[in-house]
Parts: sequence; structure tokens; C-alpha cells
Amino acid sequence: MLERGCVQVYTGNGKGKTTAALGLAFRALGRGLRVCFFQFIKGSGVYGEHLLAEKLAPQLTIIRSGRPGWVNTKDITADRQTAQEALEQATKLLTSGDYDLMVLDEINGATAFGLIDVEQVLELIRLKPEKVELVLTGRNAPEQVIEAADLVTEMRDIKHYYLAGVPARTGIEM
Amino acid sequence: MLERGCVQVYTGNGKGKTTAALGLAFRALGRGLRVCFFQFIKGSGVYGEHLLAEKLAPQLTIIRSGRPGWVNTKDITADRQTAQEALEQATKLLTSGDYDLMVLDEINGATAFGLIDVEQVLELIRLKPEKVELVLTGRNAPEQVIEAADLVTEMRDIKHYYLAGVPARTGIEM
Repeated sequence: MLERGCVQVYTGNGKGKTTAALGLAFRALGRGLRVCFFQFIKGSGVYGEHLLAEKLAPQLTIIRSGRPGWVNTKDITADRQTAQEALEQATKLLTSGDYDLMVLDEINGATAFGLIDVEQVLELIRLKPEKVELVLTGRNAPEQVIEAADLVTEMRDIKHYYLAGVPARTGIEM
Repeated sequence: MLERGCVQVYTGNGKGKTTAALGLAFRALGRGLRVCFFQFIKGSGVYGEHLLAEKLAPQLTIIRSGRPGWVNTKDITADRQTAQEALEQATKLLTSGDYDLMVLDEINGATAFGLIDVEQVLELIRLKPEKVELVLTGRNAPEQVIEAADLVTEMRDIKHYYLAGVPARTGIEM
């Protein structure tokens, strides 16, 4: 168990936010901490991390939420409903005492799309048990969330191979 | 095996470079890729990742190099010798055909300290087999390495809890 848990934010337009959170999970698992990796707006698709997680259960739990496909930005009603239910579930897990490290992957994206309100994220941060580490990832972290966090890293895209025509690759991007 | 391997660089002064590389390893392992995580200037201390790696061997190999303690910046002779030997070992592993993902953790730091020459890193990149993904981490990535890479993310420190007196914590920083 951690002596003291902090709030970390990984934001910005560069590659490395979700993977940094996965790396934190990796290290924490090595130390025997219990990890919940909760993914927002990632309803479909299997990623490499899900496959390894099966081997590392029950110390690691990965939960995916979100509708299949991408957020319908023209009408967010259904996506918001799904995200709100996920938020409720994530809040229960955060305060359950079952986990030392709680990652809310892409919650910043969900907030930027209007699926979750900034005030709800701030409330989640207030509810964080003292000895739980909370990690929030995703682009466009709101200013108030950055203020409430203990550590914030911006991943800045300096150069990306998507522009050179490299597609998402199994084992690297997914 | 990857269809096409790229060169990724994670640099900057923010938290998340080594952990992003660990997260890439995590995902790759889930997909059955073989991973070598080679650490420069990290000669002493056990980190959580080393403990989990033991469970994930032989698919994952973590190799540490460097003298105990920190680099002697007043006289780098011994540190350079150690780093040069490590570079030779890393080059053999990169070209061995035994790994799909090769991480050279903190190689940018080793280069910035003068333990490894920029030209040697460029030569390593040239030697990369086509289907191997190569990941270089550490602050102060040289401009020529950034130019040679396919993807570069700068981790920018927006806020860090060290400044608020939070020490390195087992399971999070180590």
C-alpha cells in the first residue's frame, strides 16, 4: 500500500499518455500494488494491454467503457449516458479500497467532448482515498483539473509517424 | 513480428518517459512480441519493473547497466567505459533477431553526459533491423537523433510533486 497517494495528469497531443499510465501500472504491479485501469471512450477493439492483463489478474483489472466506434460529436446524448454510467462505476472502484493505483484513461477526452463535466472530475479527485494514486490521461485536460493535480506532464507531439503514412500497428499502437 | 519497425524518441524534462516505454513493452508483450528493455546509467537500485519482469521472462528481458550511484560528472572516464560496454551489448541485442521491441532507456541522458557519442546513437539507428521497433528515452535528445527518428514526443513538466516535497515512492517512482 502507498504511504501517500497523489493525482497525476498526462495530457497533450503527443503519443505516450496511455502508455505512460500503463508503465506506471507495470511498475506498481511489480511492487505488489493492486491496479485498476479504467478506460473511457474506448468501447471497442482489443489492445495488447487487455491480453496481458488477463495473465496478471486479479492484481490488475482493466475495464473498458464507451460505445463501439468513436464519439458521435453531433449528438453526444448516448455517449454521455454511457460515460456517466462509467463514471459512477469508476467512482465506486476508486473508493472501494480494492486498488492502490487507479488510472482513468482518456477521462480528459471524455470531459473535452462534454460527456463528463469538469465539476464531476473535480469531485472524483476530492473523493480519492488518501493512499490511492489517481492517474488521469487524455488530451485537453481542463485547467481546473491541472490545478487540482499534484503532477502534470504535457506530452508534446514533436514528430509523428502517422504523417509519414505509418498505420496503427498491432503490438505498438494497439 | 512487426511488419515495419520505427524509431521512437521520448524526451523532455517531465515524468513519463521511462514509463511510456514500459507501457509500450506492456502492450507489445500482450501481443506476443519479444521485448528487450535495456537501461543505461541505472546501475543500482531495484525498480518495480524489474520485479514484474522476472515473472514475464523470457518474453521480456530487462538489462541494467551503469555504475552504482549517479554519473560522476567531474570525471566521466569510468562511466564512459561502462556505457561503451553497455552500448556494445545493446547493439548485439538489437541486431540479434531475438527481439521485436528494443528499448534503450536513458540513452539520451548517457549521450548528454558524454558517455556515448551522438554519432554512435545514429549508427545504432542505422543498424536497426527493418522489423524491430526501437525506442530511445531520456532528457536532452540530440537534434540529430530527433531528425533520424520517426516519432518524437517531448514530455513537458507542467507541475511536479517533487517541488511539493513528495519523495520518490516505491511502486510509483521505483
